[in-house]
Amino acid sequence: MAAPVPTEAFVPGHITGLFTVNRDEDPLRTGSRGAGVTLVDGATVEVGPAGSSGIRIDGNRMEIEAVRSVLESLDVAAEIDIETELPLGTGFGLSGAMALGTALAANEAFELGHSENDLIRIAHRAEVEAGTGLGDVIAQARGGLPLRLEPGAPPHGQLDGIPARKRVEYLSLGELSTPTILKERREVITAAGTETLAFLREHPTADRFMAASRQFADAVELLTPELETIIETVEEAGGQASMAMLGKTVFAFGRDLSDAGYDPEVSATHPSGARLLE
Amino acid sequence: MAAPVPTEAFVPGHITGLFTVNRDEDPLRTGSRGAGVTLVDGATVEVGPAGSSGIRIDGNRMEIEAVRSVLESLDVAAEIDIETELPLGTGFGLSGAMALGTALAANEAFELGHSENDLIRIAHRAEVEAGTGLGDVIAQARGGLPLRLEPGAPPHGQLDGIPARKRVEYLSLGELSTPTILKERREVITAAGTETLAFLREHPTADRFMAASRQFADAVELLTPELETIIETVEEAGGQASMAMLGKTVFAFGRDLSDAGYDPEVSATHPSGARLLE
Repeated sequence: MAAPVPTEAFVPGHITGLFTVNRDEDPLRTGSRGAGVTLVDGATVEVGPAGSSGIRIDGNRMEIEAVRSVLESLDVAAEIDIETELPLGTGFGLSGAMALGTALAANEAFELGHSENDLIRIAHRAEVEAGTGLGDVIAQARGGLPLRLEPGAPPHGQLDGIPARKRVEYLSLGELSTPTILKERREVITAAGTETLAFLREHPTADRFMAASRQFADAVELLTPELETIIETVEEAGGQASMAMLGKTVFAFGRDLSDAGYDPEVSATHPSGARLLE
Repeated sequence: MAAPVPTEAFVPGHITGLFTVNRDEDPLRTGSRGAGVTLVDGATVEVGPAGSSGIRIDGNRMEIEAVRSVLESLDVAAEIDIETELPLGTGFGLSGAMALGTALAANEAFELGHSENDLIRIAHRAEVEAGTGLGDVIAQARGGLPLRLEPGAPPHGQLDGIPARKRVEYLSLGELSTPTILKERREVITAAGTETLAFLREHPTADRFMAASRQFADAVELLTPELETIIETVEEAGGQASMAMLGKTVFAFGRDLSDAGYDPEVSATHPSGARLLE
């Protein structure tokens, strides 16, 4: 196989506000309903030539199971260089972004001739099998503020979106252990996700998304005292905030964290989805 | 109703390379299978306050039935100001772009609380009922190089995409009468569209899209001698080109028209789809 031309893809980060857990024997039917926010910050994935596959994040060697699995599915060996401004493991869907970015860039670099849906399916399956995500990949492929109406990859998964553009503020305090939480609280999560998604779909706006996310965070009892204090401080200042599922991260629209006296990171909703870079 | 804040949306132009005609009693199930290219050039639609609805394109009063119909569906009266770099009536899906842009911007300006799919449905129905388009709106909502696998608006219509970024060149020579052609050649068009879409889906790349579009143009016998001469000149120079369905427009990727000695307009594929502007 000829050495490919280095090729880059960008995939937005994805903050999940509320979700359900939907498992199936078929990983392409496994996934999640729910709602989230994609960000102009995300993962830039460069696929370059290599005799064997290796992964670097911001210059450091790492093992990311979902990325490794995408390369195996595509049957290529490549050096994967990933850059991201977002903190790992704190609820920004970065493993999904890295898996989808690898699929898009490798398809182009090695001229594999897969369709967009093929690549979404490959990345979604890799995430589900690695146990690192259920709904990030399909949300990141769409961009904006995705509503996941039916779980899974195309053609099973069905999406809608909230038509809005927003400044996003966030504060990240650290990691949460995703797999443990998903196992222990699956039924509570799915009940709360179903209810708050229905509430959001009655009036799919950015404000209602934040209110539904806040209700979800309360119902699933994942708020640490530290996160709860920040959210309540924002509310006392007249704003809205909620928790990124799943990470010790508080997010808000507009200036709601700044106006409550915090010094947050600033981002914005991504207007579209994952894409090859020129 | 309070006067809304002026709000803008951008919707990419859409060149259809090949298509089928799929009519149904339900306009949301009426549509088209096929493939096309969305462009960084398109329609910017501003919705401003007005006592009664009026439409201007590049400053000139116009009547666009699909736009009028979207405003009626949303039950709002507004002044619609549209700007576009693309020529009207020559195969760039501008009526679809104007209808979808009006839906997105009016939903935001009047805080109507519709979802993205709601707005796509409203614009698609308006286009179908006006007889000005079958597949542009859903393609323009997705962006990139959309493949329309199943006809109609969500949740009926199903899309995929060709994962590519391309420079696009085009030459526009004038209008074709769309409604007459769709009536007279419906069966030939649908047979050719079905066959060339299957050929394209075997290997969904930009090159194959151009080859499939060229086959489609031949099969439906819509090439005027003038268009045929341009396409053949491009092919003699080692390139590929085809005809925008439906307009007297030749399009090509990269520099294939320039390299054949023409002086084309230059655009590029749109990386995403319709969006609100900030």
